[in-house]
Amino acid sequence: MKKKSKYVLGILGATGAVGKETLDILDERKFPLESLRLFASKRSAGEVLSCQGREWKVEELTPETSFAGIDFALISATDAISREYGARLSAAGILVIDDSGVFRMEDDVPLVVPEVNRQALRSMPRRIVSIPNCTTTPLVMALKPLQEAAGIKRVVVTTFQSVSGTGAAAMDELMNQTRNLMAFREAKAEVYPYQIAFNLLPHIGSFNEGGDCSEEIKIMRETRKILEAPALRLTATTVRVPVLRCHSEAINVELERPLKPHDARAALAEMPGVLVYDDPSKKLYPMPLDATGKDDVFVGRIREDESTANGLNLWVVSDNLRKGAALNAVQIAECLTEH
Amino acid sequence: MKKKSKYVLGILGATGAVGKETLDILDERKFPLESLRLFASKRSAGEVLSCQGREWKVEELTPETSFAGIDFALISATDAISREYGARLSAAGILVIDDSGVFRMEDDVPLVVPEVNRQALRSMPRRIVSIPNCTTTPLVMALKPLQEAAGIKRVVVTTFQSVSGTGAAAMDELMNQTRNLMAFREAKAEVYPYQIAFNLLPHIGSFNEGGDCSEEIKIMRETRKILEAPALRLTATTVRVPVLRCHSEAINVELERPLKPHDARAALAEMPGVLVYDDPSKKLYPMPLDATGKDDVFVGRIREDESTANGLNLWVVSDNLRKGAALNAVQIAECLTEH
Repeated sequence: MKKKSKYVLGILGATGAVGKETLDILDERKFPLESLRLFASKRSAGEVLSCQGREWKVEELTPETSFAGIDFALISATDAISREYGARLSAAGILVIDDSGVFRMEDDVPLVVPEVNRQALRSMPRRIVSIPNCTTTPLVMALKPLQEAAGIKRVVVTTFQSVSGTGAAAMDELMNQTRNLMAFREAKAEVYPYQIAFNLLPHIGSFNEGGDCSEEIKIMRETRKILEAPALRLTATTVRVPVLRCHSEAINVELERPLKPHDARAALAEMPGVLVYDDPSKKLYPMPLDATGKDDVFVGRIREDESTANGLNLWVVSDNLRKGAALNAVQIAECLTEH
Repeated sequence: MKKKSKYVLGILGATGAVGKETLDILDERKFPLESLRLFASKRSAGEVLSCQGREWKVEELTPETSFAGIDFALISATDAISREYGARLSAAGILVIDDSGVFRMEDDVPLVVPEVNRQALRSMPRRIVSIPNCTTTPLVMALKPLQEAAGIKRVVVTTFQSVSGTGAAAMDELMNQTRNLMAFREAKAEVYPYQIAFNLLPHIGSFNEGGDCSEEIKIMRETRKILEAPALRLTATTVRVPVLRCHSEAINVELERPLKPHDARAALAEMPGVLVYDDPSKKLYPMPLDATGKDDVFVGRIREDESTANGLNLWVVSDNLRKGAALNAVQIAECLTEH
């Protein structure tokens, strides 16, 4: 892309949970904005959102919408929107940063977490770059320094995923169910198949024949692609929890070579975007409540796993709307403006 | 113990979450009760509780309390109560079934889940039997049939533990915090170090120098003792979740020999006290909401873990107040009446 001093940015899905977070992040990071084009479905068209001290009206996204003049488009809507508009935008010469699962595993689409594999942005033949699933991003942020320090043999990850990963409607559902239950009324489930308030759903996405969730498959495949470790041995169990924001992960790692918790802590502390938050004796460990609204991936409870050679346990918490989605997308846009 | 047609049962901690569940279970199972003696602290003394169609007054537990005539005592109070009264009761010739961590790991005290190691009750030199931690019990219920079918090499377990594991005060705390947050008021934390409503605490018990929680250590040690596998390789991460009842566990197992999910399912289905609840295509998987008030340990999401030889993933949910505590204690009492 031609280097400019300011850019025209389009956001598809501007009124969703990730879209709104994106506007905050463009503000905070003073992204060099010439102007913004905000797109959403008919229902939200006409809303006015503010960013960088100016107000921007949300336009309805239709097959007739013209994207002329846009430099970057960030898409965070549905798979169908990404499929339809991703190709159209890229054909119009616009750089697309896509948050869906549609393009992530395609060979000619880089899948990028800038701190981990920024170099993958060098080849964007389709002018599309994907950002990973919101559980993959914190996982690779924590694994990368361990991979470099001692090699990774096998990973067992169990996730505790907040409802905002599903979107704003799921956040409303958790709140409404909670309000109704506290008033001894029925808790209706519409977004999820069952009540999520005061409950756990070991089910994210759809199930394949082997009984894996699509979310579990995504974590496996995306992690291998980002870490450039196609044979990495990894298994995942993904669980929805009654938390509003932040995804948490219990990560068990078998390393190729010995790495003491102290040295793992040092390697993680050097990783940009990672905050080592690990002093159990002072009751300091990552929690969703603390990580909400924060950019860093919080890593704690770093300890030896004596059940295997070179085993480590970690507990990782990250704001799924920020580093898991909007922040990672804006960081990629920043990288591309510097190319 | 001399076989009788009816027994006198004492319950220490009768007004707590586990104590109240115990009364329900004695009712449901028609335990052969001659009479009940209910004990609690001064605060609860005088309360009247019903069981088997009769009413029983709660007595204050003091160093002067006489236990004459009691056949069994179930203790579910604090470690201090177990330490003080466990020894006194047993010295008085009473069979003690204890729910604390005080005696579990002592060589001359059996640690029993009847479906798994009922045979351990044959030797009770101190007249004390311990019941396991409420996370250990469902874990060994799920592991035992796999151990018999294919041998166990290594286990990685991550727990999602409800607040009732801490007791009735913690259930009140979750409800009060939730009520306050929904009304935009502050959520005070008193039982836990931080807010538990809409949050996760990767911290159960106290931390040792290596950064493990006491709960994690308990799971490791107790599982080895119950499965009679002193060298079993096991690592645990224990997390408190904003759920009222039932503990859930993501269990990753490496077996010694191959065992297909289909065969694991069959082995688990034959285990008394286990309910295989596993049909993802119909959205059937264990959840705390479904397992609440149930006796069975629900096992689902049984699937192959391709990241290792003979790997399996399971998702287990069990009511921590029932099989995790009160039910297991009453089952042990039943076994002892049959000896």
